[in-house]
Amino acid sequence: MLQSNQSVIRLNPADNLVIALVDLPSGTQPGGLDIATTQAIPRGHKIATRPIAAGEQVIRYGQIIGEATCDIAAGAHIHSHNLGMGPHTDDYAIGRESHALPALPPREFMGYHRADGQVGTRNYIGILTSVNCSGSVARFIAEAAEKDPVLSSMPNIDGFVPIVHNTGCGMSGVNEGYDTLMRTLKGYARNANFGGILLVGLGCEVMQVPDLVGQGRLRPDGNFRYMTIQQTGGTRATIAAGLKVLREMAEVAAQTARAPAPVSKLMIGLQCGGSDGYSGITANPALGHMSDMLVQMGGTTILSETPEIYGAEHLLTRRAVSTEVGEKLLERIKWWEDYTARNGGEMDNNPSPGNKKGGLTTILEKSLGAVAKGGTAPLVGVYKFAEPITTPGFTYMDSPGYDPCSVTGQIASGATMIIFTTGRGSVSGYKPSPCIKLATNTEMYNRLAEDMDINCGDILTNGVSIAAKGAEILEKVIAVASGQRTFSEELGFGSAEFVPWQIGAVM
Amino acid sequence: MLQSNQSVIRLNPADNLVIALVDLPSGTQPGGLDIATTQAIPRGHKIATRPIAAGEQVIRYGQIIGEATCDIAAGAHIHSHNLGMGPHTDDYAIGRESHALPALPPREFMGYHRADGQVGTRNYIGILTSVNCSGSVARFIAEAAEKDPVLSSMPNIDGFVPIVHNTGCGMSGVNEGYDTLMRTLKGYARNANFGGILLVGLGCEVMQVPDLVGQGRLRPDGNFRYMTIQQTGGTRATIAAGLKVLREMAEVAAQTARAPAPVSKLMIGLQCGGSDGYSGITANPALGHMSDMLVQMGGTTILSETPEIYGAEHLLTRRAVSTEVGEKLLERIKWWEDYTARNGGEMDNNPSPGNKKGGLTTILEKSLGAVAKGGTAPLVGVYKFAEPITTPGFTYMDSPGYDPCSVTGQIASGATMIIFTTGRGSVSGYKPSPCIKLATNTEMYNRLAEDMDINCGDILTNGVSIAAKGAEILEKVIAVASGQRTFSEELGFGSAEFVPWQIGAVM
Ligand SMILES: [Ca+2]
Ligand SMILES: [Ca+2]
Ligand SMILES: [Ca+2]
Ligand SMILES: [Ca+2]
Ligand SMILES: [Ca+2]
Repeated sequence: MLQSNQSVIRLNPADNLVIALVDLPSGTQPGGLDIATTQAIPRGHKIATRPIAAGEQVIRYGQIIGEATCDIAAGAHIHSHNLGMGPHTDDYAIGRESHALPALPPREFMGYHRADGQVGTRNYIGILTSVNCSGSVARFIAEAAEKDPVLSSMPNIDGFVPIVHNTGCGMSGVNEGYDTLMRTLKGYARNANFGGILLVGLGCEVMQVPDLVGQGRLRPDGNFRYMTIQQTGGTRATIAAGLKVLREMAEVAAQTARAPAPVSKLMIGLQCGGSDGYSGITANPALGHMSDMLVQMGGTTILSETPEIYGAEHLLTRRAVSTEVGEKLLERIKWWEDYTARNGGEMDNNPSPGNKKGGLTTILEKSLGAVAKGGTAPLVGVYKFAEPITTPGFTYMDSPGYDPCSVTGQIASGATMIIFTTGRGSVSGYKPSPCIKLATNTEMYNRLAEDMDINCGDILTNGVSIAAKGAEILEKVIAVASGQRTFSEELGFGSAEFVPWQIGAVM
Repeated sequence: MLQSNQSVIRLNPADNLVIALVDLPSGTQPGGLDIATTQAIPRGHKIATRPIAAGEQVIRYGQIIGEATCDIAAGAHIHSHNLGMGPHTDDYAIGRESHALPALPPREFMGYHRADGQVGTRNYIGILTSVNCSGSVARFIAEAAEKDPVLSSMPNIDGFVPIVHNTGCGMSGVNEGYDTLMRTLKGYARNANFGGILLVGLGCEVMQVPDLVGQGRLRPDGNFRYMTIQQTGGTRATIAAGLKVLREMAEVAAQTARAPAPVSKLMIGLQCGGSDGYSGITANPALGHMSDMLVQMGGTTILSETPEIYGAEHLLTRRAVSTEVGEKLLERIKWWEDYTARNGGEMDNNPSPGNKKGGLTTILEKSLGAVAKGGTAPLVGVYKFAEPITTPGFTYMDSPGYDPCSVTGQIASGATMIIFTTGRGSVSGYKPSPCIKLATNTEMYNRLAEDMDINCGDILTNGVSIAAKGAEILEKVIAVASGQRTFSEELGFGSAEFVPWQIGAVM
């Protein structure tokens, strides 16, 4: 499609502009275009591909990024001097652009079938903690389990994962922060990538183990145990008791072997971190294409990171399948405005001077790069952080943009895999869910070759199409879901990245 | 002093009351007292040991806990019906009770002398992280170092400690939360228990490595290096580069052997966690006595946990050595009132119904139990969380009550040892600083014998005096400072307990 010697890129057939990939002098005719630049265009900036009349919409990624504030000639530079937001952005138009995508033939992966109908991509046993004060002991139990000859000889088990965090006490027991942590811990306990969960508490913490366990079954398969260090009699007694219980739980978990499942059972968290100027051009749109394909096969994807879509929320409300779904997203946006205000900040995602220099003109254009990960499918559900996701299709889960925290929410909401685009080069893993890393540019991909699973930089350097790259990502998804290990799994990542969203005062 | 068959305890010779240790029927004459109870007294409650007139001060721990609201007969129950706060509590009376304690003969310990004159109790090499996103790699480097034959054969080095946390990005770069994290990380880099520090960042985080490193020397001995994963070329390259640098740093750190130092070089964080009804009667006053002894020898102790002293701050302002010191404490109290209010909570440390049932009548009485850890020495300095402590003597560092977070601040402020009283039984360790656990009661001590370094329950069960117990703690302090390992060190604690205070919105 695109040539490796190309000097511009068109991101969507509907666009009335292209992006310069190199600094273009005035009078240049970029390959594949029948127009010449009317002035010098810096790399990363926009060039009109046809005349755009004052008041007409300017389209990038097939999406409105604003309106021409004066007539723009073909070949002219589009930027702050001739592009504004226009009045349309206040119109959330819930559902106006919610168009179901055609179904694609079903595909299968080999997964772990759970009692509640979910299918995991991994079969870990988790050692979950209610509070930081049981974190070290949870690690000791996991270390003992990894060394235990009985446990290490059991089939079908991927390992023993301590889920350790910084909170659980020194907090109110009745506020939003408490509820959020409660959902997060319960969500991990239920994630389909766990074949069993041992919950270890200290005993005197605010996040009480009996409250977490609740009245009903935390796990539908019943493969769940709990203990507190204070009641069990200290560190060594808890390690011994934990190891004994893990052997019983592992017996059960080892009964489950991988078996065919439709990809409609996959739930994938979409992430970006360490973004660069290529994120919105290469990896994010390719991931968006994969998201559409998975949705077309009945699967579920999760977009998150509310501060990064702020200002472009109407793009998502227009895709909402119902008024309720659209309004829940707007309610979350309002919540964030209050959250940042009460913490002395603000939701300010306006293009910075650096962004503008790089070629981003409007807040819409900036947020579009992040939203591109979510493809074009209808928005079927909006969820709070760590709320269980129950609607198959393209969904939104509210979260900070901070990567480990956002991923923690997605896994608590049910994600059994994460796909993470990065331009600067993030290295991280999120047990129990494998994480596929997509590099946005070839230079970083080559530099961090042992950390990046797929290079999306070849969209620019080799002219690979967004659609072809999306299909390549889908094949990787199916392979990894069926047991192929990602680079971050091979390297052993995942012992530090459980980061519950801490909301409220530390007391 | 006290008999093991005793039924009451007098906490201070100046007290005009005793505490019932068992339920006492009306007409009981407790051993050692020449009065009989005039009514039934529940366990944990107060009995007047002489007539107290209406308006007279009621004294516990040698401190005012309120005023009699009517005449109280000798042998009568003192509680909410006859004890109130009185008007005096609004009087901060800065410095009124700041009385220097007599010097005690100097003692020595065997420590690691540092370039800036500090003396450490341990000689670790730290692998510090700017952000959660470099946490796994820091752990990989530490694991590689622990297995490395060159490093493990070096003398005088206690080990390689990854300092991993949940924050460092998804935050504002210009607010109080950022400043607090910056102080915390710099404080760890400078702690005298580290013989060298390798700082590992990802590269694109808000908490930028160049800002942490600053213009000057982060460590006075210069045994400090830093790298980012993105610049170094990914996970494996950073592990290899880290290991190489650790070998060079270890060569330097291994030159320092333990040598005699006065105990005036010790800086000890005072902590309580998982408190119970005995904390304020046994372990906390004993620790307070040790604090006084250490101060009398020129050493430094740090009281913290502002929510737990709230309402009794005038007890500390009266001990302040200057108006400035007293006012800085009051300024912190006001900050906390704002912090909790903007997070939708409040500073409410009033005795709860459960506290009152247990025998605590006033907020003063409740907070006194926590303040008792701080002995009676003049308050020479008040510091923000993680602010470097530079005034020898009894000091205050502002922090939440949440144990791992409060300890993290104390170590960042310079603490080379922690002493932690616990009634319910906390198990935890805080590398690089050893932590001595004091059990408040014999039952828990026996149950968690492998986690508790000293039993203070024998103050009640065996009649050991507060002074004798304080002296016993001091001997333990000197032994541990000289290299004796605490139980939590033997068990390997410390990989989960670095908890910077996260203030503000996660973005
Ligand atoms: Ca991001
Ligand atoms: Ca992110
Ligand atoms: Ca407490
Ligand atoms: Ca406490
Ligand atoms: Ca504490």
